[in-house]
Amino acid sequence: MSVRSDVARMTAYTLELRSAEVKLNQNESPFDFPAELKQQVLERVAKRSWNIYPDFESISLRSAIATAYGFTPDNILVGNGSNELLAAAIGAFVGPGTPVVFPRPTFTLYEKLVTIAGGLPVPIEFDPDSGFLPLDAMLNAISEYQGAIVIVCSPNNPTGGVLPRGGLEKLLSTGATVLFDRAYGDFANDELPPLDDRLVTFSTFSKAWGLAALRVGWLASTTANCREIRKVKLPYSLNIISEAIAEIALGNRDVRDRNVAAIISERARVNAALRAIPRITVFPTAANFITFRTERPLFEELCARGILVRDVSAYPRLAKCLRVSIGSREQNDRFLDAMGELT
Amino acid sequence: MSVRSDVARMTAYTLELRSAEVKLNQNESPFDFPAELKQQVLERVAKRSWNIYPDFESISLRSAIATAYGFTPDNILVGNGSNELLAAAIGAFVGPGTPVVFPRPTFTLYEKLVTIAGGLPVPIEFDPDSGFLPLDAMLNAISEYQGAIVIVCSPNNPTGGVLPRGGLEKLLSTGATVLFDRAYGDFANDELPPLDDRLVTFSTFSKAWGLAALRVGWLASTTANCREIRKVKLPYSLNIISEAIAEIALGNRDVRDRNVAAIISERARVNAALRAIPRITVFPTAANFITFRTERPLFEELCARGILVRDVSAYPRLAKCLRVSIGSREQNDRFLDAMGELT
Repeated sequence: MSVRSDVARMTAYTLELRSAEVKLNQNESPFDFPAELKQQVLERVAKRSWNIYPDFESISLRSAIATAYGFTPDNILVGNGSNELLAAAIGAFVGPGTPVVFPRPTFTLYEKLVTIAGGLPVPIEFDPDSGFLPLDAMLNAISEYQGAIVIVCSPNNPTGGVLPRGGLEKLLSTGATVLFDRAYGDFANDELPPLDDRLVTFSTFSKAWGLAALRVGWLASTTANCREIRKVKLPYSLNIISEAIAEIALGNRDVRDRNVAAIISERARVNAALRAIPRITVFPTAANFITFRTERPLFEELCARGILVRDVSAYPRLAKCLRVSIGSREQNDRFLDAMGELT
Repeated sequence: MSVRSDVARMTAYTLELRSAEVKLNQNESPFDFPAELKQQVLERVAKRSWNIYPDFESISLRSAIATAYGFTPDNILVGNGSNELLAAAIGAFVGPGTPVVFPRPTFTLYEKLVTIAGGLPVPIEFDPDSGFLPLDAMLNAISEYQGAIVIVCSPNNPTGGVLPRGGLEKLLSTGATVLFDRAYGDFANDELPPLDDRLVTFSTFSKAWGLAALRVGWLASTTANCREIRKVKLPYSLNIISEAIAEIALGNRDVRDRNVAAIISERARVNAALRAIPRITVFPTAANFITFRTERPLFEELCARGILVRDVSAYPRLAKCLRVSIGSREQNDRFLDAMGELT
């Protein structure tokens, strides 16, 4: 084997495979796509020729997204989940030695992709208690590291916190290129920021649209940025069913709106109930999950009660922390009941 | 914009979008997946929850592939087309400055991915006339470039030629790691080579299985190699329909066998007919396409007759060359009729 030494040193992104009655470990929507819309998708797919490659440029879906958000198709790239687009953007902007500033704890994939690209990770550690990402420390790091690229996820996974108001604009005013992951933005009632030569935003159909099984993400940026990122992205990243489902979803925006409203409402209820439990620290969240610190480990005991949450205690600054997705009312009740019993 | 200079210098992988009555430009199978199997796939997908992520490890599909080919699931990784797996393997083995030996002309994605990884492309140019890849020149380059990685596609796209008999073993005997793309191997009646610590093979459902629209590829290697490549690969690369279709396809191997037999038989017929046309040089092929050189440009004139082939004349050593996929008997007749009129 002649694997790269920096890859040999990496650990794999893993997820322990467990099944559970109440699955609240992956920030999935609790609501399946409506049966009649599934049927529309499947009918469209049945009529297509499966032996023929998907549209090379995904023109139809890119146009539908552009129309829905007020851009042109040249401002949009689509991918097999927003992960693929993050990887392509990092490949386009991060070369050997490029410093990349990002808050930590955050989605571990960023640091992994930066390492693969040969970049220099510049993690800015912060405590999740305030509910805000460490904007000032990030601004300092950007001025310290010439030519830094910034990656920021707001609301942040796995803490739930957000950039302070005006934070994105402050990051952009440094002149640094910002890769802005808004996977959870819908749950913060976040608007898609306007196009900027220094900004690439990443969105997904997995969370607010509740389509995690189908793997569709998209990015928005200037035509010039899209052209460069497209050079790095693999062709044909969406198959015909992913394209069909995303297009049909965009035509039924009420599905997203109902999902988001229900999750925000349940989040408030779960949040209040968790805060009423003694000896738990609940971190402010604007996402579809809540992260909290307990005095003693509860992960296994929750599992024993059929409740699967995400053990995030191995993340920096998240010792003894768990992350729970906001599920359906019934799922959340099961989780809260178990928490009540255990604490 | 602060895009990497080596990315800025790259050209995008593009494909001119044209529609045509007879589409023979992408090495697609002419045969759609059988309607009753489509229905099985769609029924299985309709029952799944679309809001829940696909299996993180694609255990079920990896097990099905392992069983079909006599491996264990730890020897298999699956991806969104074999392109994704090629990208991951190159990311795992090729770092800044790593020399990568490959024949040229070949699939242009290899060189692009090597460039993105910061590796040193070592193309070995060859003429397609003999029908063989330049094994001796590759062996020389491997001994010249310490620590070289090898990428080879046999049968080779877009020339159709193959490694000489025993060529893969000779490449492996150098101690170099070989990334072996057998996307077209089924059309050469190629056996999957045995596992080897220095070998990664890439296969696809797009060509012989005729499932280009669904984007499923897989690689086979030792457990240790798979573990390292998996660190670089993005998680969740297959959506639930891709998994379902590949599993159902593997249970219906006669679909593949019929496709391959029909294409090999038509290839012989088209090959003989093309060779009978004066002033055309037809290169030996073991793939599902034929590449040939004409005295004057014919691409546009074929288009005007409703026949879309691939203009490969911009590749090194392929001036005035076209590549035509082997289609259905009717498609091939249309193509041959047009060629007869034009030459």
